[in-house]
Amino acid sequence: MDNQLAKLLEERFGIVFHDINLAEQAFTHSSYVNEHRNLHLSDNERLEFLGDAVLELLVSQYLYREYPNLPEGKLTKTRAAIVREESLAQFATDCGFDAFVKLGKGEENSGGRTRPSLLCDLFEAFLGALYLDQGLAAVLQFLETVVYPQVEAGAFSHERDHKTRLQEVLQKSGDVLIDYRLIKEEGPAHERIFVTEVYCDDKMIGIGQGKSKKLAEQAAAANALQSLGK
Amino acid sequence: MDNQLAKLLEERFGIVFHDINLAEQAFTHSSYVNEHRNLHLSDNERLEFLGDAVLELLVSQYLYREYPNLPEGKLTKTRAAIVREESLAQFATDCGFDAFVKLGKGEENSGGRTRPSLLCDLFEAFLGALYLDQGLAAVLQFLETVVYPQVEAGAFSHERDHKTRLQEVLQKSGDVLIDYRLIKEEGPAHERIFVTEVYCDDKMIGIGQGKSKKLAEQAAAANALQSLGK
Repeated sequence: MDNQLAKLLEERFGIVFHDINLAEQAFTHSSYVNEHRNLHLSDNERLEFLGDAVLELLVSQYLYREYPNLPEGKLTKTRAAIVREESLAQFATDCGFDAFVKLGKGEENSGGRTRPSLLCDLFEAFLGALYLDQGLAAVLQFLETVVYPQVEAGAFSHERDHKTRLQEVLQKSGDVLIDYRLIKEEGPAHERIFVTEVYCDDKMIGIGQGKSKKLAEQAAAANALQSLGK
Repeated sequence: MDNQLAKLLEERFGIVFHDINLAEQAFTHSSYVNEHRNLHLSDNERLEFLGDAVLELLVSQYLYREYPNLPEGKLTKTRAAIVREESLAQFATDCGFDAFVKLGKGEENSGGRTRPSLLCDLFEAFLGALYLDQGLAAVLQFLETVVYPQVEAGAFSHERDHKTRLQEVLQKSGDVLIDYRLIKEEGPAHERIFVTEVYCDDKMIGIGQGKSKKLAEQAAAANALQSLGK
């Protein structure tokens, strides 16, 4: 396995694979296998199939326990928002996994490394490999670092979407212009912190920080709502 | 919990719930809750949400391990065939669960007790309850009795669909009429055995038995293929 990848997994997530081949396979795209047939590699597609289901269960269980009063329809909607392609691609990037996926030349040249569907599959394949290597508890622990904090921050739940609520509150008395401005971005690539201010008709009404732009904006909106006494 | 249900679960599946309320809830349809608001019951919809994901993972894991050479696309297809509404409704009926679901009067009168979507939800809710009560290993054990044998028998896999293969073999030399005739059905409701013969142009060419009509037909087709030396 790539040394840098092994280092990332261990230092950032405390993960050391017992079976290095599984981790290798999770980061191997089919385009790479096709271009290196003589190496007899396996691509990550079967792991993605498994990881998809592991994620689905752990997200379902998390939502079931954290939101004891949410009806089934809303649980299903929130789960769908969390496990959809765009979200999972973002998680893969947040984790820094995109740098390590092995691609064929054609795929690389056509921008495969930033393609959401490819990154989404990569994230699921990683979960599948981790599940086979270390079981459900290890995947749970990983999601507790990477996914659940974003759910708690309201990134996926309409119920807890502070930006939408702020907009509703401010526009009650007529049209206003609300905008979010990223004012700072700091820290190393894998522990980046974003700071955002929210403005209403050019007046700063809230500030917030978070591990992604989305989270920083949510935090700024929550801060504005609080100042407004809402 | 209904005594007969407790008896069925224990005697047939070796399952004794620690938390009786969870089992109760799994068998409570929303129509019943709506008609008995004074009882402050919970319906089975949230459990169904969870059970759906538990089933998805265990079926995925089973297919991943049992079919090490099946590509992702075929794994996904087979999984979809197993977890689709019609299949799950059949599992619920095979288990004898349909007799125990609590329905409102309107739902009962309009045939809810035999409606596939209701039975499918019931089956998933039961898995969700069992998962919360006893964990993944207990659900796995249950599926090993109820679901996996049918997968092994080829009920869901196009790769192993004997009926389709028999048809292909017989129709190679022109059109023929193939039909399956149920000739016997015996045993108690929860351990019913079906015996089916397969005919080609009114000549009996195979016989088989199984726990459902579908399985008996597959077995008859497999027997015919064998006699034909295919």
